Amino acid sequence: MAEPHAPLGVGLIGTGYMGKCHALAWNAVGAVFGDVARPRLEMLCETSDAYASARAEEFGFARSTSDWRALVSDPAVDVVSITTPNAFHPEMAIAALQAGKHVWCEKPMAPDFADAQAMCAAAEASGRVAILGYNYIQNPAFREITLLISDGAIGTPFQIRAEMDEDFMADPDTPFFWKNASSSGYGALDDFAVHPLSLIQRLFGRVDRVFCDMAMPYPLRRDEAGEMRAVETHDMANMLMRLEGGMQASLQVNRCAWGRKGRIALQVFGSNGSILYDQERMNEVELYRAGGDAREHGFTRILTGPQHPPYDRFIPAPGHGLGFNDLKVVECREILSAIAGEASSVVSFADGLEIERAVHAAARSFEVGGWVDVG
Amino acid sequence: MAEPHAPLGVGLIGTGYMGKCHALAWNAVGAVFGDVARPRLEMLCETSDAYASARAEEFGFARSTSDWRALVSDPAVDVVSITTPNAFHPEMAIAALQAGKHVWCEKPMAPDFADAQAMCAAAEASGRVAILGYNYIQNPAFREITLLISDGAIGTPFQIRAEMDEDFMADPDTPFFWKNASSSGYGALDDFAVHPLSLIQRLFGRVDRVFCDMAMPYPLRRDEAGEMRAVETHDMANMLMRLEGGMQASLQVNRCAWGRKGRIALQVFGSNGSILYDQERMNEVELYRAGGDAREHGFTRILTGPQHPPYDRFIPAPGHGLGFNDLKVVECREILSAIAGEASSVVSFADGLEIERAVHAAARSFEVGGWVDVG
Amino acid sequence: MAEPHAPLGVGLIGTGYMGKCHALAWNAVGAVFGDVARPRLEMLCETSDAYASARAEEFGFARSTSDWRALVSDPAVDVVSITTPNAFHPEMAIAALQAGKHVWCEKPMAPDFADAQAMCAAAEASGRVAILGYNYIQNPAFREITLLISDGAIGTPFQIRAEMDEDFMADPDTPFFWKNASSSGYGALDDFAVHPLSLIQRLFGRVDRVFCDMAMPYPLRRDEAGEMRAVETHDMANMLMRLEGGMQASLQVNRCAWGRKGRIALQVFGSNGSILYDQERMNEVELYRAGGDAREHGFTRILTGPQHPPYDRFIPAPGHGLGFNDLKVVECREILSAIAGEASSVVSFADGLEIERAVHAAARSFEVGGWVDVG
Amino acid sequence: MAEPHAPLGVGLIGTGYMGKCHALAWNAVGAVFGDVARPRLEMLCETSDAYASARAEEFGFARSTSDWRALVSDPAVDVVSITTPNAFHPEMAIAALQAGKHVWCEKPMAPDFADAQAMCAAAEASGRVAILGYNYIQNPAFREITLLISDGAIGTPFQIRAEMDEDFMADPDTPFFWKNASSSGYGALDDFAVHPLSLIQRLFGRVDRVFCDMAMPYPLRRDEAGEMRAVETHDMANMLMRLEGGMQASLQVNRCAWGRKGRIALQVFGSNGSILYDQERMNEVELYRAGGDAREHGFTRILTGPQHPPYDRFIPAPGHGLGFNDLKVVECREILSAIAGEASSVVSFADGLEIERAVHAAARSFEVGGWVDVG
Repeated sequence: MAEPHAPLGVGLIGTGYMGKCHALAWNAVGAVFGDVARPRLEMLCETSDAYASARAEEFGFARSTSDWRALVSDPAVDVVSITTPNAFHPEMAIAALQAGKHVWCEKPMAPDFADAQAMCAAAEASGRVAILGYNYIQNPAFREITLLISDGAIGTPFQIRAEMDEDFMADPDTPFFWKNASSSGYGALDDFAVHPLSLIQRLFGRVDRVFCDMAMPYPLRRDEAGEMRAVETHDMANMLMRLEGGMQASLQVNRCAWGRKGRIALQVFGSNGSILYDQERMNEVELYRAGGDAREHGFTRILTGPQHPPYDRFIPAPGHGLGFNDLKVVECREILSAIAGEASSVVSFADGLEIERAVHAAARSFEVGGWVDVG
Repeated sequence: MAEPHAPLGVGLIGTGYMGKCHALAWNAVGAVFGDVARPRLEMLCETSDAYASARAEEFGFARSTSDWRALVSDPAVDVVSITTPNAFHPEMAIAALQAGKHVWCEKPMAPDFADAQAMCAAAEASGRVAILGYNYIQNPAFREITLLISDGAIGTPFQIRAEMDEDFMADPDTPFFWKNASSSGYGALDDFAVHPLSLIQRLFGRVDRVFCDMAMPYPLRRDEAGEMRAVETHDMANMLMRLEGGMQASLQVNRCAWGRKGRIALQVFGSNGSILYDQERMNEVELYRAGGDAREHGFTRILTGPQHPPYDRFIPAPGHGLGFNDLKVVECREILSAIAGEASSVVSFADGLEIERAVHAAARSFEVGGWVDVG
Repeated sequence: MAEPHAPLGVGLIGTGYMGKCHALAWNAVGAVFGDVARPRLEMLCETSDAYASARAEEFGFARSTSDWRALVSDPAVDVVSITTPNAFHPEMAIAALQAGKHVWCEKPMAPDFADAQAMCAAAEASGRVAILGYNYIQNPAFREITLLISDGAIGTPFQIRAEMDEDFMADPDTPFFWKNASSSGYGALDDFAVHPLSLIQRLFGRVDRVFCDMAMPYPLRRDEAGEMRAVETHDMANMLMRLEGGMQASLQVNRCAWGRKGRIALQVFGSNGSILYDQERMNEVELYRAGGDAREHGFTRILTGPQHPPYDRFIPAPGHGLGFNDLKVVECREILSAIAGEASSVVSFADGLEIERAVHAAARSFEVGGWVDVG
Repeated sequence: MAEPHAPLGVGLIGTGYMGKCHALAWNAVGAVFGDVARPRLEMLCETSDAYASARAEEFGFARSTSDWRALVSDPAVDVVSITTPNAFHPEMAIAALQAGKHVWCEKPMAPDFADAQAMCAAAEASGRVAILGYNYIQNPAFREITLLISDGAIGTPFQIRAEMDEDFMADPDTPFFWKNASSSGYGALDDFAVHPLSLIQRLFGRVDRVFCDMAMPYPLRRDEAGEMRAVETHDMANMLMRLEGGMQASLQVNRCAWGRKGRIALQVFGSNGSILYDQERMNEVELYRAGGDAREHGFTRILTGPQHPPYDRFIPAPGHGLGFNDLKVVECREILSAIAGEASSVVSFADGLEIERAVHAAARSFEVGGWVDVG
């Protein structure tokens, strides 16, 4: 095809945390990468016409609406960013796909597994590109880890330990809010675990079986009326896993971990070396290679640079540092590749379904007190 | 004024490393900050019409040209980004200012101090905003340092040590190139020292006197013809300084420092504490406060977050990390403030002149082997 | 009592890794602490008379023997250091106790739990001091952690994660040796887990229930004859635990963790803060306290110093660093206190039995695939 | 010689900070190393008979005295440890040498350079071993650095930066004491700089010329009577140096550096790599080697272990950590080698004289405001 990257028309639903990330990415992707046509920012949807209009002006979208159905069916829109709360994902994503649009939807897919399955089915039926916003896999540092492992830098990997911790719920005086209600899901398990699971799955494939222990540091929180109310979600979860092929894995998530701000830590051990990573220092990878002179053994702290693509598209000099928002720009570029039918590195709806399957299995294992096959 | 941030028309000259940074910033500033009108990307200038046109498409500029004089005099252009090699800065900046444009020029100002003075004079005469691209001062982490010091967190500061090191010239087999020729300046002194000097000046004011020792790790390099050629610039410089008010300072710069990729390290010691910073971990500040329980004394590693503005404009969650390019977006926002006549944090041409004055004094001190007053 | 620390006569059995540690401690304790009488180094036992004699001269013991029974019954010996392989501990410790000696025995107590119980019973019957060499609890850094937690520095603790990793078995080409045979125990579980369990128990009490997953990175190793032989022990174990009182805990041990040399890492999360520790940087503790100015939040890296007793007995200046062997000197000092009937911080045989009980329960849980009560 | 290490009789003068260090080393050296005869601890000298007697009992010395002349002339004493305040070093060391004793004297040699020269002359005339207690060179980590450099691991070294910082004088409210009086010397320059200079000299030879800027953070301190008194010493010094052969060096010392507890930091840059070191993490060396796969470039954090002698004499397992006091044991072992006429790694009086020559030259350069040849 002569023009693999013809300018696409973009629709954006939602302008919160992730919505703004998407908007920044759509604004930047053309200038950062140069090898894609700058997308047309066609239409933005928010909860009211006025707000939608204001945000469209800020974010550089040509038109705005408060009717998401109008957006997903607009003929000038080719791809739809869905960044609304999870409960809205299924209906919006399925409608967009059925309207023939490509979909870039934030994770996780849906509170209910059946809805996630329906989204997956809709994606398959549509023949359109349908991906999830698991942007941590787009970090050049993580891509380097992927490459190191596939290149055999650490030999045969036999264990991974993952942790994801933040502290936004660590204060016992924080009032009861929606994340404390069971309607939001299990707790840290679905809120956090999907992120490191996306990394584990990218590196080593699906989770085969899982054992999970969840805990509530604060069983009661004061609600807005000042009454103590029982918390319904678990802010901490420890998971033991075996991956397909038998590899041993563990995952610990905690949203009451004082001092942790955006930690996603990995430790991978193999027959010839080890790899360490922490998202709080997202421009670094630590690598230990066995062999060579024992006097010089140690973990090497690799700072990402132009030799770790696509860092070079952002900055030509090494060690200058990418930021969180840059990962979304990379993800955006990958979607454009996927839409153009080229190789790309994304988490499809089908991939995402596997992640959520593991999460639900973990929740079941907590109930039964033993291993549960993810199936 | 009813409309402090009316949309400005932007002209960009140059699309290399820094040119692309400017372009990304102009594309992003509206969406990131929301409280400014999105600038109109009016015109881009490159060395040929074809290249200019291609880049304009990538970077989202409406028009293009290979004639920078056409750009600086275009009536739709309000502010001009100048990102060409240093030698071109004076002519372009002065022309733009004389045409009534605001100017955002990359640092350093000019190889020749007299030219820098002329730029400064032109800025003053024009009444326009004329600033330099010292973006490291825009890092929320550095802003926090500024605030900590002005708040007295470390008491009375009495010493600063600064280092800036990279390794892009560390390989002795790298052939002779323009940075080895004296036409490029003194070497690491002008190439690097201006950056940490911008930080020192922002924190503690002007350099009063300076003593500098420069060295050449590789006095000879092979030129493209394979002949050994005498290197004319110094890749390493160690400077001792006293700042206005008498504070003791030091600055060490090295562009042959293997393993250093983007290091700009600060150590500030005061009567009640200390502050540490390293640009390679640009989202972190280390603070030591004296007092309190001796058992708990230590450096606290502060990860930047929404409590360190304008981090919050990029990401609402802490610890997720800004990147180098984000600093340019902050700088862009500050220019818009300056143009709107609001308070802003920028390095003006006048400020930049002081930085370059210190650099030239340092070079003289190396010749005379003693202290030189910056004057 | 007028003379709480009359000079004690010391007998040492074994002069390997730990035997030398004990010898160094007995040599140093008087000079380091000053407040105890220098012990008399009475007798040393090794496998042959000649070797015993040579080691006695090196280690400064007055007499030597190859008959450990002679040593434990020698009237000039008041306290016996037992540093032989674990299988010998029960017989030697029980004999020494029955001879009325105090016993300082290396951990773990015994391969067989019944033997450990017998040791414990003998200790109780004897009325003598009988302690185990869990020296990591003696680190001033760890003592500081203990104090911080009991002082409420992190509020109510609700989760601990522990890891212990080394790489001495990480090379797949290492031949089959005794640690690969089931006669040595379960693998990393007994080899490693007892150390972090001693720390967990000191901080938070006994393990209530446990779930463990063990894995073999290398199921086969070549024996000395060059034949492949099935490995019988597990080099990696992941344990989920609940402690008495319900606190959530985890422990991961791996003796094939390339690059880890002496890692014993702790993460403790509480309602008001967090504490981090890693034995590879044994002079450091990281503390996060919630509250105060959000701008300055972060982990504080505390370097141990004289304010963290008994660091001051070794070095009067802060930040100079204790080493591993110094911990054994502290432990030695604690035994002297225990013998003098003073308060002391030691792991008694009774405490050690609880640690080993948890290890055996973990092994059972791996077999049954579910939680096992430690009982 | 059949018996190179016959038991030596040891005399110790002084039992303060360093005196205790020496005592611990003399107690430990035989057990740690095994290949030397355990020294006889013959006599200890303190300021009163009673104190001397008490310390002798603590430290395991057979006899005690308050007459240092009796000690240095005692026929059973072969080697004398001198750990008194610097002003006493010359008289004691010279007397001991003239009495035919070997001398192990703490650094620096003497407040007055002429006295240091006299000590050096006495050592030469005596034919005895006369060394200074520069124990940081004995760290296995530093020995590894020495070896890496001599092996060419970083190619041709062309720059070293050294820093030594503590904070024991950082509090402005600390009353005037003897270190604030000019009788104690220049300040941080002699108090601190000799330590890193010993490292620099060991790695790269003598200082050729020096430029120094000194500063007083607190020009006035309250004396014990509550009166403000002018401080006479400089707590901070920044030195630029050229070493013999022309290599560029810098050294910064500060005893008012809040948060620094025992920092002695080195950065060495060479044509093929770099080395980093910090005494606060004395079991670590960071090495960057150029070449190889650019994707994996970075500083490797080497943890010392048995492969870095003589770590193995202390602990057979890697990563367990030596402490500050262990360095003195290594130094003690080196003296025994020197006395036995074997190769050893020590700072002789002659070496120490060169270090102090550089210090005095630095002080002169501060007065004249220009380079001073060390001569």
